[in-house]
Amino acid sequence: MIDLEIVLIELFVLVLLANVASIICKRFQIPVLVGVVLVGVLISNIIIDGQSIYSLLKLSDEENKAVFEVFAQLGVIFLLFTIGLETPLHELRRAGKTAALVAVMGVVIPFVAGLSLMLLFNYDMYQSLFIAAAMVVTSVGITVFVLRDLGMMETREAKVILGAAVIDDMLGLIVLSLVSGIAEGGSLNLIDIAAVAGLAVAFVLMVIFLTSTVPKARSSIGSKSEKKRRFHHPISPLPFALIICFGLSALASYLELAAIIGAFLAGMLFAEFKDIWPAEDKFNPINEFLVPFFFLQIGFLVNLSSLADGWVLFIAAALTLLAIVTKYAGGWIGAAKLGKRSANIIGVGMIPRGELGIIVAAIGLMAGILDESLFAIIVFMSLLTTIIAPSLISWSVKRKGKWGESFKSKPEKFQGD
Amino acid sequence: MIDLEIVLIELFVLVLLANVASIICKRFQIPVLVGVVLVGVLISNIIIDGQSIYSLLKLSDEENKAVFEVFAQLGVIFLLFTIGLETPLHELRRAGKTAALVAVMGVVIPFVAGLSLMLLFNYDMYQSLFIAAAMVVTSVGITVFVLRDLGMMETREAKVILGAAVIDDMLGLIVLSLVSGIAEGGSLNLIDIAAVAGLAVAFVLMVIFLTSTVPKARSSIGSKSEKKRRFHHPISPLPFALIICFGLSALASYLELAAIIGAFLAGMLFAEFKDIWPAEDKFNPINEFLVPFFFLQIGFLVNLSSLADGWVLFIAAALTLLAIVTKYAGGWIGAAKLGKRSANIIGVGMIPRGELGIIVAAIGLMAGILDESLFAIIVFMSLLTTIIAPSLISWSVKRKGKWGESFKSKPEKFQGD
Repeated sequence: MIDLEIVLIELFVLVLLANVASIICKRFQIPVLVGVVLVGVLISNIIIDGQSIYSLLKLSDEENKAVFEVFAQLGVIFLLFTIGLETPLHELRRAGKTAALVAVMGVVIPFVAGLSLMLLFNYDMYQSLFIAAAMVVTSVGITVFVLRDLGMMETREAKVILGAAVIDDMLGLIVLSLVSGIAEGGSLNLIDIAAVAGLAVAFVLMVIFLTSTVPKARSSIGSKSEKKRRFHHPISPLPFALIICFGLSALASYLELAAIIGAFLAGMLFAEFKDIWPAEDKFNPINEFLVPFFFLQIGFLVNLSSLADGWVLFIAAALTLLAIVTKYAGGWIGAAKLGKRSANIIGVGMIPRGELGIIVAAIGLMAGILDESLFAIIVFMSLLTTIIAPSLISWSVKRKGKWGESFKSKPEKFQGD
Repeated sequence: MIDLEIVLIELFVLVLLANVASIICKRFQIPVLVGVVLVGVLISNIIIDGQSIYSLLKLSDEENKAVFEVFAQLGVIFLLFTIGLETPLHELRRAGKTAALVAVMGVVIPFVAGLSLMLLFNYDMYQSLFIAAAMVVTSVGITVFVLRDLGMMETREAKVILGAAVIDDMLGLIVLSLVSGIAEGGSLNLIDIAAVAGLAVAFVLMVIFLTSTVPKARSSIGSKSEKKRRFHHPISPLPFALIICFGLSALASYLELAAIIGAFLAGMLFAEFKDIWPAEDKFNPINEFLVPFFFLQIGFLVNLSSLADGWVLFIAAALTLLAIVTKYAGGWIGAAKLGKRSANIIGVGMIPRGELGIIVAAIGLMAGILDESLFAIIVFMSLLTTIIAPSLISWSVKRKGKWGESFKSKPEKFQGD
């Protein structure tokens, strides 16, 4: 049985420190989550009497660790579900072509660049392929949190980023399957890989198709019988939303997509029932409670001592720089026709690799292809791209200034896509 | 690292089943939580291919178990915090004398009866003392959930039950300290026990004192400077509420009181700042998400096979019956002067032993005083008193009928206390 007293102390300390950091950040106009991530970094890296604060708080005990990992993951999952609730499908569709181009460019350029750099540094082909695969993914949680905070979720830049994240996740899965296949042995089973990728794509398309048919289906049932049903539906909004959210997140995860992509699609689907089951207000307090644990968790994963080796630090820095530049370039080129400033926002918005980069690294480590230092390098790259993104996004949005606002009221500008 | 996919599947299945049960219960006008507890019982007792559904879902894995235990405990903690937010201190104080009498009667009668019954059945003194101690506790989580559902939280019966729960918890701690002291060896260190009890009482009194001084302190600071501050306080309501809630719950737990008592007191304290930090609406969705896990957890703990032995089952049934009758009698006698019907509600409201009974049993088991079968008997008693209470409460409230309503508008009737 888990020791409740210790969990309560951990919760008390973490929520307290996260909020002290938030207050300080607000005072100095730094993005709040940067402060919260930093609290996480300090907790896991400050050593007292040979133990980090992280272990002193018993956060390293298997059970407690599991609890806070789940809090963190539910935080992003609910955040993306809420974003989905606020994203009408037709707006995402309108962003479709641009989003696809952003995703493709954001996969091809980092992959080629990452592969070249690692081969140049004399790493073997398999290792280089895996590291290149980790460069490809995009974790959109941090980006949407920042954009939402800035009141930017209604803009086309946000829609392009969301659409690109969905497509990027499918492309990333294909890249990872190919790379894993090559690494596991010369006999690349293309049929298996096509099956994995096909299922993932089919899942995404099916949820999107379902979402698009709901309005028609509901209007064909007729408004009268619907009104009647409204007083009879026996399930309340929040539990129903949770069921859809957990169901599609689990399914996405089972199909080796990111759980948050499932949550985002679930949110979009559930939004079609907003009038019967209004759930958006209910998720806000839950997110306010859970999302900070996601930022703390990112900080916990930063292990400053793993970078004590000069060569490792050099490769990590070079790879991180490349990861930032190439994703930015991919996004920028993909969104170029929306104008420089929009392309700028979309470019920086795609930079974070977050937990997805770490997952790729963990697969490589468990497959015996990556060693500890290469693993640390990818983790470093994933986290630094994630930590740096909020400031870049804030900067790019402020650069854009009032220009973005004007676009909100001119959605027809966007139909050219 | 915990497997997120499995946690998401567990969440999906549990939330889905809990809601199917809720819908069925509503249809047949059974208290919803009875259905949810039953789902928990079925999940942990239905065996497929030699494994319970509980283990098939991997809920028995240490890490997953920890996650859902924390969800369950946070569910009751937040529930009691919310109840505290809705309970003005002066109303609780008005119920003070009656609550104290209910608590004392509800400790003395079950203790004496439990001790006598077990000695009668030829259990040794130490075992009998421990079982009697487990009869003494009151877990008020289920009761307040039911009363809240029935819109009864404003009534004096609810205040008496809440006040009695706080006092009962302090008395229960004293009883448990005495019993543990006796069991650990003849040398009963009364000074240590007085210190433990004194600290717990001091904690409760201090929080109550703090709560009572807030209005005066705030009015002496003056309304002008307060208005000014209102626009400057840098922390938002929910995080601040969480910090107070986790802090006092952890402190209560550290002082060997129930964490939920700390949460309840924290809620009462925080309610004094309702105008600056309104948090009550924010807790409702969080509770809606987490509280069902508390009911499921109660069901998970029911192990029907431990009662396969006829003699054990007989003792368990006898003890449970005694636990119900004696707590009811204690509450009834303590609240008699409020009238038969109020005494009835308060009597049944005090019946559940919940997780507190199980905690006492676990202490006895770890101290080597209780064996597996006596442990199972206490768990059975704790759970059955908890499961049976909602129906009894609903019944007693309905019996009371409109009579209770009329009291709501006549609080002066209550000042005689």
